[in-house]
Amino acid sequence: MTPKIARFLRESAPATPCLVLDVDRVEENYRRLQAALPLARIYYAVKANPAAPILERLVRLGSFFDAASFEEVEACLAAGARGAAVSYGNTVKKERDIRAAFERGVRLFAFDSEEELAKLARAAPGAQVYCRILVGNEGAEWPLSRKFGCEVGMARELMLAAGEMGLDPVGLSFHVGSQQTTTAAYEAAIARVAMLFTDLREAGVKVRLVNLGGGFPVRYREAVPEIEDFGTAIMGALAEHFGNALPEIIVEPGRFIVGDAGVVQSEVVLVSRKAKDDPVRWVYLDIGRFGGLAETEGEAIKYAIRTPHDGTAEGPVTVAGPSCDSVDTLYEKSNVRLPLRLAAGDKVELLATGAYVTTYASQGFNGFRPLAEHYV
Amino acid sequence: MTPKIARFLRESAPATPCLVLDVDRVEENYRRLQAALPLARIYYAVKANPAAPILERLVRLGSFFDAASFEEVEACLAAGARGAAVSYGNTVKKERDIRAAFERGVRLFAFDSEEELAKLARAAPGAQVYCRILVGNEGAEWPLSRKFGCEVGMARELMLAAGEMGLDPVGLSFHVGSQQTTTAAYEAAIARVAMLFTDLREAGVKVRLVNLGGGFPVRYREAVPEIEDFGTAIMGALAEHFGNALPEIIVEPGRFIVGDAGVVQSEVVLVSRKAKDDPVRWVYLDIGRFGGLAETEGEAIKYAIRTPHDGTAEGPVTVAGPSCDSVDTLYEKSNVRLPLRLAAGDKVELLATGAYVTTYASQGFNGFRPLAEHYV
Repeated sequence: MTPKIARFLRESAPATPCLVLDVDRVEENYRRLQAALPLARIYYAVKANPAAPILERLVRLGSFFDAASFEEVEACLAAGARGAAVSYGNTVKKERDIRAAFERGVRLFAFDSEEELAKLARAAPGAQVYCRILVGNEGAEWPLSRKFGCEVGMARELMLAAGEMGLDPVGLSFHVGSQQTTTAAYEAAIARVAMLFTDLREAGVKVRLVNLGGGFPVRYREAVPEIEDFGTAIMGALAEHFGNALPEIIVEPGRFIVGDAGVVQSEVVLVSRKAKDDPVRWVYLDIGRFGGLAETEGEAIKYAIRTPHDGTAEGPVTVAGPSCDSVDTLYEKSNVRLPLRLAAGDKVELLATGAYVTTYASQGFNGFRPLAEHYV
Repeated sequence: MTPKIARFLRESAPATPCLVLDVDRVEENYRRLQAALPLARIYYAVKANPAAPILERLVRLGSFFDAASFEEVEACLAAGARGAAVSYGNTVKKERDIRAAFERGVRLFAFDSEEELAKLARAAPGAQVYCRILVGNEGAEWPLSRKFGCEVGMARELMLAAGEMGLDPVGLSFHVGSQQTTTAAYEAAIARVAMLFTDLREAGVKVRLVNLGGGFPVRYREAVPEIEDFGTAIMGALAEHFGNALPEIIVEPGRFIVGDAGVVQSEVVLVSRKAKDDPVRWVYLDIGRFGGLAETEGEAIKYAIRTPHDGTAEGPVTVAGPSCDSVDTLYEKSNVRLPLRLAAGDKVELLATGAYVTTYASQGFNGFRPLAEHYV
């Protein structure tokens, strides 16, 4: 929690649940990533947090943007970004959304299938397109399975087809999974991309861009490698596989830019036990999986929780959200311990919750309204 | 899909994704449940779908309401319900919400813990309270684990304490899990409640209410027992365990009342393969888990999907939502087969999606707005 956030919580005592996010920390993270990967263009993954104060600050810093939908393209333009600074990075797009983005100046699009390529050729003629390939997601705490990307053999055919369809097959992309905690995942993916790159060049395709995706991790409860470690590993792998003929490099960080810039404050609604002698207490917060903490699904992302009683005696707890739905349980198997003095009415803070929270919040599950947002 | 919904889709061609719900079907379901359980008071579980046209129709039918939050209490009152017709059934409530509901005339509250009972005694003095006990959820497709309810021994102590605190410990509740496909779950739970009931009466507590919860299933892809079968089994179990001294009976149906009254229409955004010879196609819809289809988590609720090509040759598919998140995949292991002719731009219908969809929708995940709602 940054001093600015602490001061805001202290002085404003906002209603809970709420996110308080320090936009200066966003800038610091952006600059730090830039220093760690000086050759890369940074496309902020808008989906991590599309709030205007974040986008506006990043526009001022010269950032590029990765949009998942036409609505996100619009949000970038509204914040002052040029269309040419936006990549439409979802491989799954409606044709009318491609057209609308193209009309606003977006010139870079992702694809991973024949049908999508046909849509792009019709709705964004001549645009730069890159093909997303499937790579391993080992080491990612929020892996991306096989939903996006295609096999290398198909990627090769599609890149050749793209040129024939009047598009500019500019490069390749991959994603090692979000909250990726190992640098090896990038190294393996770069090796895979480099082989296809060479192959495509030999086939006459003027590929010149590698999109490394995002995935850079944030510290939750456990330490993660520093961004500088990722920078070193990535630059090493690029040098190894591309030599001096480095391609243009794109990265699409979301979590890394905004994750540790935000804190969710929540009120404890109830602390109870299922039986009198049960050692495990249930702690119910006024925010849960449907209130924005969707990444606690399967207990994947383990947020650190601060309470007003930290430092006093603790005991094991199950942490749950406020709704009448049992899947709205945050942590049951993750060995969370909280102070024995914790009681209804206490305010607690979930740290590093600046990414993938606000927009996930349901519009009114069980009647609960989405969390408030404060950008300081 | 009812004829009214089919006509609306045909004549209005609404933008997708959207829910179209036939309020007359809500009334039919309400009357059918009333006929199946004539001795029970029906408290509609507002969380299943809190839309005003549904609540208003149910108010006219004389329904009672089960609210999960103060916001849902307000929705019932706005629809014309009396405060006395509303039960505040969430065992996890902020004290100020209890007070606000009590001030609006709500007189029936759930609890399952000591801390909650203390809040109720302070904020709703003299109110009727019922204790939720833990029961098995075998047979439920959306089970409720241990998040709500307490062990019988603790329930006994809390019911005794409630009287001493000036509350009216009116009865007991349980929940066999949502989309419960076996009648046996209710029979076992009733037996459990009846024992505690007798025990409490002997201890001098004037218990007189049994809240059977909800859980009555809707037909998705597979057939489920008819509501009349549940009625017969429940009345049989009540007669067996309570004899002629039947308690007041409450049921809290949500899914059963609105589930098959609604249809979600969605547009196919992309059909693709991961490799050229891959037999499985990926079908991406413009609604997914974060757009309202949250109950497809773990492929729990298996919606039937109608396409314009039904009856033509089919093949295996993975069905996913439109967002850049892999967990936004609906069906990967459920052996869904869809027509080979399905393509981007086709409209498909997800049947029996009237419950637990609209309010689950995220407010803007990946920039996608919540689905539209049409009540006809």
